[in-house]
Amino acid sequence: MDFKQIITGIYDEVKASAPDGKVSDYIPELAKVEPDKFGIALITTKGSTFSIGDVEEKFSIQSIAKVFLLSLAFSIRGDSLWERVNVEPSGNPFNSVVQLEYEKGKPRNPLINPGAHVLSDILLTELNDPYEAFLQFVRKITGTRSIDFNEKVAKSEKNLGYRNASLINLMKSYGNIENHIDAVLDFYFHICSVEMTCEQLAKAFLPYANLAQPFDFAGVTLTRSQIKRINAIMLMCGFYDESGEFAFKVGLPGKSGIGGGIVAINPKQFSVATWSPRINKKGNSIFGMRALEMLTTRTEDSIF
Amino acid sequence: MDFKQIITGIYDEVKASAPDGKVSDYIPELAKVEPDKFGIALITTKGSTFSIGDVEEKFSIQSIAKVFLLSLAFSIRGDSLWERVNVEPSGNPFNSVVQLEYEKGKPRNPLINPGAHVLSDILLTELNDPYEAFLQFVRKITGTRSIDFNEKVAKSEKNLGYRNASLINLMKSYGNIENHIDAVLDFYFHICSVEMTCEQLAKAFLPYANLAQPFDFAGVTLTRSQIKRINAIMLMCGFYDESGEFAFKVGLPGKSGIGGGIVAINPKQFSVATWSPRINKKGNSIFGMRALEMLTTRTEDSIF
Amino acid sequence: MDFKQIITGIYDEVKASAPDGKVSDYIPELAKVEPDKFGIALITTKGSTFSIGDVEEKFSIQSIAKVFLLSLAFSIRGDSLWERVNVEPSGNPFNSVVQLEYEKGKPRNPLINPGAHVLSDILLTELNDPYEAFLQFVRKITGTRSIDFNEKVAKSEKNLGYRNASLINLMKSYGNIENHIDAVLDFYFHICSVEMTCEQLAKAFLPYANLAQPFDFAGVTLTRSQIKRINAIMLMCGFYDESGEFAFKVGLPGKSGIGGGIVAINPKQFSVATWSPRINKKGNSIFGMRALEMLTTRTEDSIF
Amino acid sequence: MDFKQIITGIYDEVKASAPDGKVSDYIPELAKVEPDKFGIALITTKGSTFSIGDVEEKFSIQSIAKVFLLSLAFSIRGDSLWERVNVEPSGNPFNSVVQLEYEKGKPRNPLINPGAHVLSDILLTELNDPYEAFLQFVRKITGTRSIDFNEKVAKSEKNLGYRNASLINLMKSYGNIENHIDAVLDFYFHICSVEMTCEQLAKAFLPYANLAQPFDFAGVTLTRSQIKRINAIMLMCGFYDESGEFAFKVGLPGKSGIGGGIVAINPKQFSVATWSPRINKKGNSIFGMRALEMLTTRTEDSIF
Repeated sequence: MDFKQIITGIYDEVKASAPDGKVSDYIPELAKVEPDKFGIALITTKGSTFSIGDVEEKFSIQSIAKVFLLSLAFSIRGDSLWERVNVEPSGNPFNSVVQLEYEKGKPRNPLINPGAHVLSDILLTELNDPYEAFLQFVRKITGTRSIDFNEKVAKSEKNLGYRNASLINLMKSYGNIENHIDAVLDFYFHICSVEMTCEQLAKAFLPYANLAQPFDFAGVTLTRSQIKRINAIMLMCGFYDESGEFAFKVGLPGKSGIGGGIVAINPKQFSVATWSPRINKKGNSIFGMRALEMLTTRTEDSIF
Repeated sequence: MDFKQIITGIYDEVKASAPDGKVSDYIPELAKVEPDKFGIALITTKGSTFSIGDVEEKFSIQSIAKVFLLSLAFSIRGDSLWERVNVEPSGNPFNSVVQLEYEKGKPRNPLINPGAHVLSDILLTELNDPYEAFLQFVRKITGTRSIDFNEKVAKSEKNLGYRNASLINLMKSYGNIENHIDAVLDFYFHICSVEMTCEQLAKAFLPYANLAQPFDFAGVTLTRSQIKRINAIMLMCGFYDESGEFAFKVGLPGKSGIGGGIVAINPKQFSVATWSPRINKKGNSIFGMRALEMLTTRTEDSIF
Repeated sequence: MDFKQIITGIYDEVKASAPDGKVSDYIPELAKVEPDKFGIALITTKGSTFSIGDVEEKFSIQSIAKVFLLSLAFSIRGDSLWERVNVEPSGNPFNSVVQLEYEKGKPRNPLINPGAHVLSDILLTELNDPYEAFLQFVRKITGTRSIDFNEKVAKSEKNLGYRNASLINLMKSYGNIENHIDAVLDFYFHICSVEMTCEQLAKAFLPYANLAQPFDFAGVTLTRSQIKRINAIMLMCGFYDESGEFAFKVGLPGKSGIGGGIVAINPKQFSVATWSPRINKKGNSIFGMRALEMLTTRTEDSIF
Repeated sequence: MDFKQIITGIYDEVKASAPDGKVSDYIPELAKVEPDKFGIALITTKGSTFSIGDVEEKFSIQSIAKVFLLSLAFSIRGDSLWERVNVEPSGNPFNSVVQLEYEKGKPRNPLINPGAHVLSDILLTELNDPYEAFLQFVRKITGTRSIDFNEKVAKSEKNLGYRNASLINLMKSYGNIENHIDAVLDFYFHICSVEMTCEQLAKAFLPYANLAQPFDFAGVTLTRSQIKRINAIMLMCGFYDESGEFAFKVGLPGKSGIGGGIVAINPKQFSVATWSPRINKKGNSIFGMRALEMLTTRTEDSIF
């Protein structure tokens, strides 16, 4: 398959299409980003790489970090993890307190905010230095030592994260948070503040596509079966209240962040990352979704 | 892959495991079925077939029929179908009126009951004889002329379907049902009453796996892209409130019915049907789910 | 107190104020009414009457009839009535299916639609001819033999009452409706179709204010304690999702109907009825609420 | 009316009835209270007082304090208060986040927790020293200089109030809280920690019954109309999810607290306070509700 030609074609076409949506202003720090940045990076399981556009510029990966968080927690806890968080799609906006109250403080899945709070809480309980462990894992899986938290972004969220504070307090009232709330949120906001380039992001997700290789990074090990399960969760729950739409149109497991990044994988074939900061009302990058829909249409290859 | 050996092993092991769950008593006619029936039938895209147990006995396919309904409606209406029904997972029990009210009469997806009511309504509007058209399609895709409605089951549902009547009246109050309510429900209950054997069911779903062949049965044609989208919907929404669990553990697109049938496909590889009438509280066959989880674990092959 | 002067003053002032809201178009028959009709009728427990405006013209009392229905059912069943319906305010629009689902088919109170369906169901079970019994009671309490159902209005509702059908089917699915759904709805739509003048309506509610007299009309008897409880229910639940607003501003037990009627009582003092067909979005007559707020402000006398 | 005989009779009968319910263990400090304490105190608008049982022992008034909070805020803000909080009954448990999310951060009424948070927030904005102002008002209205916060109880709540923290963070995310969350909660927990005896509580609510006297305590002034509206709110919303039940059975405006206190008023007649720490699942004192139901039954006098 000639990925180079396909990706170049998609990039040009999407880039030329009408700009739509707007940069997230949820966090002041994120609002400063240049709205028309756009990049695509793809890596095949055979090692070929293709990238075009703003693929070497770092951006805030935000919710995409939840997949790394899930990988760490799953590696440590195994299936006992599911006593604390479910694996069903949410069917509601990603930060809804309604479902959390009806389900007595057990989040619907690990990729919505309250799910990620529970995973953060688990890492705080299990690890001596979860901040360091998280960074080590992410640095190892991207093969980039310079990956780090952005303290400004983390602090910016902390000051404004009232809805996150509402969710986590509600879970604590049901007994599903063990550590101090401020400690959990501080860790959570830090992991969301991690910055990567498109190329680094594509590389970081290649191990989720490359099932032939053992998954072992900085001591975080996952079995083949566990990786497949993470992929299933990404497909079901990776795009907030638009997960069905993404599965329907793109048909690949993936994860988006309100910083405008999207990453998706085609098992045994490739990992692909896009970045374009203009997001739609559901919180997903408009150019990113458009590009990935074209990709599976033109390659005639999704998981379905 | 030696499917024969794998399936025989799974059949023996599941058959020997403790019986759990119970036969649906929602409809009196269904409650009469022998609870310990169990069968597995698999057909590969290359034409090999493997079956074991009660695979030649007919059972009520119930909700599995929604996939055929969706295929007809999608074939006729194309993407304009999505103006009447969404493609997001429901995140709620399959017959919840709550979500329907909050979303003003537009069902979350075509595989929950209200979604199937809307599809039924569309066929009543579009076709002269939707009953005949449905049978023709199902007979063609199974290659079995004797497939038919079970009038007793259809009538049994009609007399007891208060929750279905509640759902469809609610949608009608929002203007999302065009035809007379009794007419829509009569058609809906008929299609759910269709009976098949495991072997017929596996055969009927092979075209959803066999993307290399054109999909054209009794005039119902779907593009490759449309088939993939139906598969994506099955994965997201095929198992009521347990869709996430099924994707997580089995990792194949599929559909269950409260008659105890489950069918699943592995794109480009096979279609597999199981039947065991004992269902869990979510409405899914316990032995069926167990067998399919073993299948993807032992073949080490799911879509993820 | 000079009610004549107060009511005349209120009538003139409200009549001169800007017309707002619009006639209910929920039922075609109701939509035909002249929007600028306006009347006020007040009767004291001592027998004095004051009326002004369109007080001798009949209008559809609609939901106000639920109070008569409650009186019949309470008289027959006593406190066992509350096993089938609660006495809590609804906190949701009057026809919400959401609360009904969360509370498993038991309506929040007797004055919302599903509550009235349950009461209708009880009368169908208990009485040989509930239609005749209802008419006899209403004729006796108004002292007017000519009170009757409006068949056109009853039929008009029947053809369009999809939301009512949704509610009652949901309750039936939970086992809280004993009779055939069509029979219950037919009776319910008939009682809502009763027509009265403002003067008749004020007279009909005087017994709820006049606690010194025994309540006994056509065999429907209520104790003093039961009347007080009906008054409490009216205060809590008589104005759909605006009950708190009415208690806050007017401070009297009462009931409104989408035909534009409102009736309220001041225990031991008076009964007052208003009619003005323009209703607000919550379903309550705008001029009626305005007039009654002025009444308790100017007389400096509410129940609080 | 011989209140002395009636109250003595009620006290004896209730005291002799089977103890039911249990002391709130929500806050450790409250759990220490002796469960079988029971007292009733009544003061008429003419100045007569009747009391029996444990009426001189202080207890934590908890949610009853919300009425004082409302009085202060209403006095300062007038009707503009209702831009921040509604006056409809909640129809949900008192601390539900669900309704708060659907209504975008505007609480249903001032007597549920989030409503009281908003009132607390307003006092923090409006007053230099809201703690002192609150104490001055409560000391003046009870005529007791020694009324004070219980710092232990206030602190105890602060450490455990995760649900309160969830609610207030949610409102802050919608922009309906102006001050720092910790500051609002600290003030809120302090006012709930105020302790009174039954006799002091009855005295404190007499001005809400005694409409003939001007309401002016430590600069907190309310018009007759404003007092009536506070009474209406108490009737609609004073007993959490059991407000309808209380209006139905007792028929008086009132307020309960999880410390086991209840206070109710009969306008122009009396104020009555009860204390018995055993509460039911809805958070209301069982003996208190029983005693007050007897009171209006035996005096044959409620507001209805």
